[in-house]
Amino acid sequence: MMSQMAHHAMLLIVVVGVLSITTSGTPVASARRHPLDPLSAAEITAVRTAVLASRLVPARPLRFHYVGLDEPDKPDVLAYAYGYGAGGSSSRALAPRRAFVIARAGGQSHEFRVDVTNASSPSVLSHAVHRGTGFPTITLEEQFAAQALAPAYPPFADSMRSRGLRLDDVICSVLPVGWFGGAGAGARRVAKMQCFVAGATANYYARPIEGVTLVVDLDRMAVVGFRDRVAYPVPKAEGTEYRAGKAGPPLAGPAPAPGVVVQPEGRGFHIDGHVVRWANWEFHVGFDVRAGMVISLASVHDEDAGLRRRVLYRGFVSEIFVPYMDPAEEWYYRTFLDAGEFDLGLWAYPLQPGADCLANAAYLDGYSADQDGNPVKVRNVMCVFERYAGDVAWRHTESGFPSQLITEVRPDVSLVVRMVVSAGNYDYILDWEFKTSGSINFVVSLTGILEMKATSYTHADEITADAHGTLVSENTLAIYHDHYVTYHLDLDIDGTNNSFVKNIITTRRNTGNPATGGADTPRRSYWTLRREVAETEADGQVDVNAGPPADLLFVNPGKKTRMGNEVGYRLIPAGATAGSVLADDDYPQRRASYSKKQVWVTPYNKSEKWASGLYADQSTGDDSLAAWSKRNRGIRGEDIVLWYTLGLHHIPYQEDFPMMPTLSGGFELRPSNFFERNPILRTRSPSPSRGGHSPNCSRNV
Amino acid sequence: MMSQMAHHAMLLIVVVGVLSITTSGTPVASARRHPLDPLSAAEITAVRTAVLASRLVPARPLRFHYVGLDEPDKPDVLAYAYGYGAGGSSSRALAPRRAFVIARAGGQSHEFRVDVTNASSPSVLSHAVHRGTGFPTITLEEQFAAQALAPAYPPFADSMRSRGLRLDDVICSVLPVGWFGGAGAGARRVAKMQCFVAGATANYYARPIEGVTLVVDLDRMAVVGFRDRVAYPVPKAEGTEYRAGKAGPPLAGPAPAPGVVVQPEGRGFHIDGHVVRWANWEFHVGFDVRAGMVISLASVHDEDAGLRRRVLYRGFVSEIFVPYMDPAEEWYYRTFLDAGEFDLGLWAYPLQPGADCLANAAYLDGYSADQDGNPVKVRNVMCVFERYAGDVAWRHTESGFPSQLITEVRPDVSLVVRMVVSAGNYDYILDWEFKTSGSINFVVSLTGILEMKATSYTHADEITADAHGTLVSENTLAIYHDHYVTYHLDLDIDGTNNSFVKNIITTRRNTGNPATGGADTPRRSYWTLRREVAETEADGQVDVNAGPPADLLFVNPGKKTRMGNEVGYRLIPAGATAGSVLADDDYPQRRASYSKKQVWVTPYNKSEKWASGLYADQSTGDDSLAAWSKRNRGIRGEDIVLWYTLGLHHIPYQEDFPMMPTLSGGFELRPSNFFERNPILRTRSPSPSRGGHSPNCSRNV
Repeated sequence: MMSQMAHHAMLLIVVVGVLSITTSGTPVASARRHPLDPLSAAEITAVRTAVLASRLVPARPLRFHYVGLDEPDKPDVLAYAYGYGAGGSSSRALAPRRAFVIARAGGQSHEFRVDVTNASSPSVLSHAVHRGTGFPTITLEEQFAAQALAPAYPPFADSMRSRGLRLDDVICSVLPVGWFGGAGAGARRVAKMQCFVAGATANYYARPIEGVTLVVDLDRMAVVGFRDRVAYPVPKAEGTEYRAGKAGPPLAGPAPAPGVVVQPEGRGFHIDGHVVRWANWEFHVGFDVRAGMVISLASVHDEDAGLRRRVLYRGFVSEIFVPYMDPAEEWYYRTFLDAGEFDLGLWAYPLQPGADCLANAAYLDGYSADQDGNPVKVRNVMCVFERYAGDVAWRHTESGFPSQLITEVRPDVSLVVRMVVSAGNYDYILDWEFKTSGSINFVVSLTGILEMKATSYTHADEITADAHGTLVSENTLAIYHDHYVTYHLDLDIDGTNNSFVKNIITTRRNTGNPATGGADTPRRSYWTLRREVAETEADGQVDVNAGPPADLLFVNPGKKTRMGNEVGYRLIPAGATAGSVLADDDYPQRRASYSKKQVWVTPYNKSEKWASGLYADQSTGDDSLAAWSKRNRGIRGEDIVLWYTLGLHHIPYQEDFPMMPTLSGGFELRPSNFFERNPILRTRSPSPSRGGHSPNCSRNV
Repeated sequence: MMSQMAHHAMLLIVVVGVLSITTSGTPVASARRHPLDPLSAAEITAVRTAVLASRLVPARPLRFHYVGLDEPDKPDVLAYAYGYGAGGSSSRALAPRRAFVIARAGGQSHEFRVDVTNASSPSVLSHAVHRGTGFPTITLEEQFAAQALAPAYPPFADSMRSRGLRLDDVICSVLPVGWFGGAGAGARRVAKMQCFVAGATANYYARPIEGVTLVVDLDRMAVVGFRDRVAYPVPKAEGTEYRAGKAGPPLAGPAPAPGVVVQPEGRGFHIDGHVVRWANWEFHVGFDVRAGMVISLASVHDEDAGLRRRVLYRGFVSEIFVPYMDPAEEWYYRTFLDAGEFDLGLWAYPLQPGADCLANAAYLDGYSADQDGNPVKVRNVMCVFERYAGDVAWRHTESGFPSQLITEVRPDVSLVVRMVVSAGNYDYILDWEFKTSGSINFVVSLTGILEMKATSYTHADEITADAHGTLVSENTLAIYHDHYVTYHLDLDIDGTNNSFVKNIITTRRNTGNPATGGADTPRRSYWTLRREVAETEADGQVDVNAGPPADLLFVNPGKKTRMGNEVGYRLIPAGATAGSVLADDDYPQRRASYSKKQVWVTPYNKSEKWASGLYADQSTGDDSLAAWSKRNRGIRGEDIVLWYTLGLHHIPYQEDFPMMPTLSGGFELRPSNFFERNPILRTRSPSPSRGGHSPNCSRNV
């Protein structure tokens, strides 16, 4: 992530007192609040009122850094959703609505819990001051304010002038400083700024003013450091544009044909408030300013058993760690924690209908609070659509019978729930794809713009020392970096208490002797399974690239299939399994030390949501997934959480310039002895009247 | 693969003298033969005539095991396709049309080369007798004949009677015996048969008659061995059906909505004979009875350079190795080489329109020869369609400018070319997905039916010893196994001579001293690239799961970008990277020893097409990818071939019964410094009139 002086709040509609979530075209208002529904605009306003009216923190200004739902306790939510627990009596009682707030005032980070059950009389329930290391996310307004400091700072103005640059053309990015030892809890809340020339192109990331760094105290909002270390030519604007009509004439050659997905019977899914129902799936889609999209209470209907069965309690992207690999002064500290330093939901923008999502998509809005605590609505921040990609759910052609060829094919339709985070220069398309087979595919697609460094090089032949990047254009190095997208997935496989099991593929020598497990055949080897149940968190850490291959399962040890197999889901990585190769003692690695292993399993703890800690800006790693996991708690037969980190080492190539074609990775959660048999065996076969084609619309179909 | 007495040839139209390739709905006849066009029906007939008329092999019967195109030499094809080489004078001259034939007669394997340039006067150009190890693929007719032997063999009939089974209900599969030491070149050509009860279900694989084995001499077509070793209960038929209407009532609950892709302006691709042109891509789609679909001469138009540029000369699935992991007498030898023992193209059936492929697909037919040498047409054996999956080609939202939010999104449309191989019980959906970005995604989707073993167990609690599989139903073990799908990909990146380069991610300690490549910053580590160019075949072997992470590139050392970077493509595994864990000295591993590494790179050699050898049945591994590669030839700056093996360890789960939901893996070939910049930067932005939606058809879109 490279954040910049983002004025986007100005572009978003600020709403006050409007309580509705709409889906595109068909507004759906629901007065019934689900306990996991995100705060409404009215509730955010109520939070603001309560906090500002409270005498607990008299210091002003008070700035809101986080306002979000204070999640009810899990047993209460389960009771609401599934009607059990707590004797069942209060299962559908109205849960209290509470907000969690982080605000800065008087140089301190304050935490509030606010009751907004009755939005007209909100009350602060608790207040605390954060005394540990790290700071909350940087607000957009702070970024505007910091950016406004640069041109007014005479040494900076001089530097720009000496480079022949017009201050009007200069745009600065606010970059977290990371942590590189020292103060910790006593640190000043600062950020750095690096600047760009934006006059002639929308792609200012391609035109860095290399060598100039500003340091800003975010609480005092003042420049406290400046360095003009070195000057390189600013790369040319030519060839950097990406906007239609400005990037050159449209491609002249043949192009794919335009197409559209038509659903003659309408959509197959229904959205009721925040609850989505589609085929055998039901889940809640929430929005949180830090995580963005949050999927909760995902359950699948087991048609054979006649039961709705739980799969996941709550899942979201907990962190995106993006360390760059240039040790130079202007680059060494770029070790971004996009969720913890910037808020993923704050950088999720309205999706473009028919382009970001298929034309048949429905959209959901999101609400957050600005720095003053007022609600901000982001229209169409998430979308839901059915996908007809030409995939096959299952098929078989049987040629073994005389005089008949049996072919049974069931085309696949899946449901995609999508959010896009434009974290400064980079864009992350984050998909949850639900399948009728019971699988959930998680896909991350990277696109957007690289972070670039100005250089004197204009040809690779000139490079004699390590340039830490690829020369993607004249005077332009795209710097090597990594992406680690960490998911928090509180799996509840057919119930709350689960175990993590490794089915380890183990080679055996055929002894030739049935008495010792062998067979009297010339086969010399085979593999079988060694089953390991993870007892504690140490057993729950897996580098999927090392050690023997294994199926990784999350099972419910209290539930077995008819055949006696433990009910479970398994995790299948599908590309993008890179782990961090930074030194263990390096500072960014200490802050995100979970990034060396793709899999961590922890016992559920309501407070353990953010892999790099609640206060991630300038964090030291003392509040992080790896730190919590050092306690090595028991995870067998417990309410456990899977943390999966999808990773990529990104060596840029010229194709990534000036705008990167999508690169994807993902993983699958797949039912594995969860159902008694293939749950979609009895899916209807397609016929001309059901999906085969649509006569009114067909042209060449 | 489990092959059975397949009568499917009876179901396919036998055509004589018809020379045309059709695309569904719009027949396209082309008299101009491309040098890589597969043999036409007329040419196959001519081959038969010439071989049977030849006096070189007087022995009868003579059975055709392989009839296919004898590929012209690569320089001649390149000259035809791109008009260069050979002085250019004869570049479009009519190349001779030749066939390659493998036939069995007199207990020997004969090879013929036949000229069919003039199909009315074909001539045998050469004849040879194969004297090495191994045998050609087993024909369908041999399988029918072998199957017919079983009920007529009294000891077998007695065994069935003693089990209370009706011979009418029994169906047998013909299974290659593998190789487990011994004879080699002097071996008898035999196969084994295992049988099933098929009366009450189409899914006879679920009802094995465990413990009974027949051995058949395929040349003499006689039973030469029989064993009734042990008896287990035949698993019940109930719950094994998968046919619509027979698998139970259709699912009653909510289902995905039917949908169809509409292309208001028609398809975006054109098929001229076997040449497909779509967007910036052009390639030739052929069909070979052993490989099935063959993609040749894939080239991409570089709009910025105004040039058509080569990517791949020829690519196909060379082998599918499927070893089972049960050392028992009836299972140890099941170590299938589906292409080499059975022919992938022979087990590719007509695709079901609107189910196997999207409704907007076009279809291509395939031709092969039956055992008597007569042409057999398989209608709609391959399909081509544009895919509108809701993916994004590139996007960016820029919030850094005051009072404007820039959002540019280019939806992705790709072109899928598909074949499905129903290799007995298993179905492999084999996709090549071409993208306008220049990428090719290769996807293998596994579905179909597991191989099952009868057992006395009815509940997992009864299992005390290693069962070598999962209890998926009462009395039914689904046996552990692997799938290794090996691609032969003759890459010609922007020209014939390429190098294989590993960009190895290498951690460096920051020395803190610019004089030693460090920087005076507190950052302690970073990674950079160590570039290794593979000199010989030994360097070309990569286990992608071991060693340091690396980008794997195929570059043209003679071509550089404007910036001086070597022009290349890179290989990106996307899941399914399992390697074999069998012992090196185990027989199946010796036959397919390439299966321990995903990547092999060899110098192009026209004869090296089949990873497990031309004569794979009962092969010993002496003619195989690993054997050829032992010569350790130079591969730097040569015409090189990438062999990529996609692998899965398959632990079955109950969901895979009685029919497996699709499980996919794949890899991507992605341009990497091939283009000067993002080649689809100038793609048109979607508008309501181009793909956004289609007003005549919209209902809820």
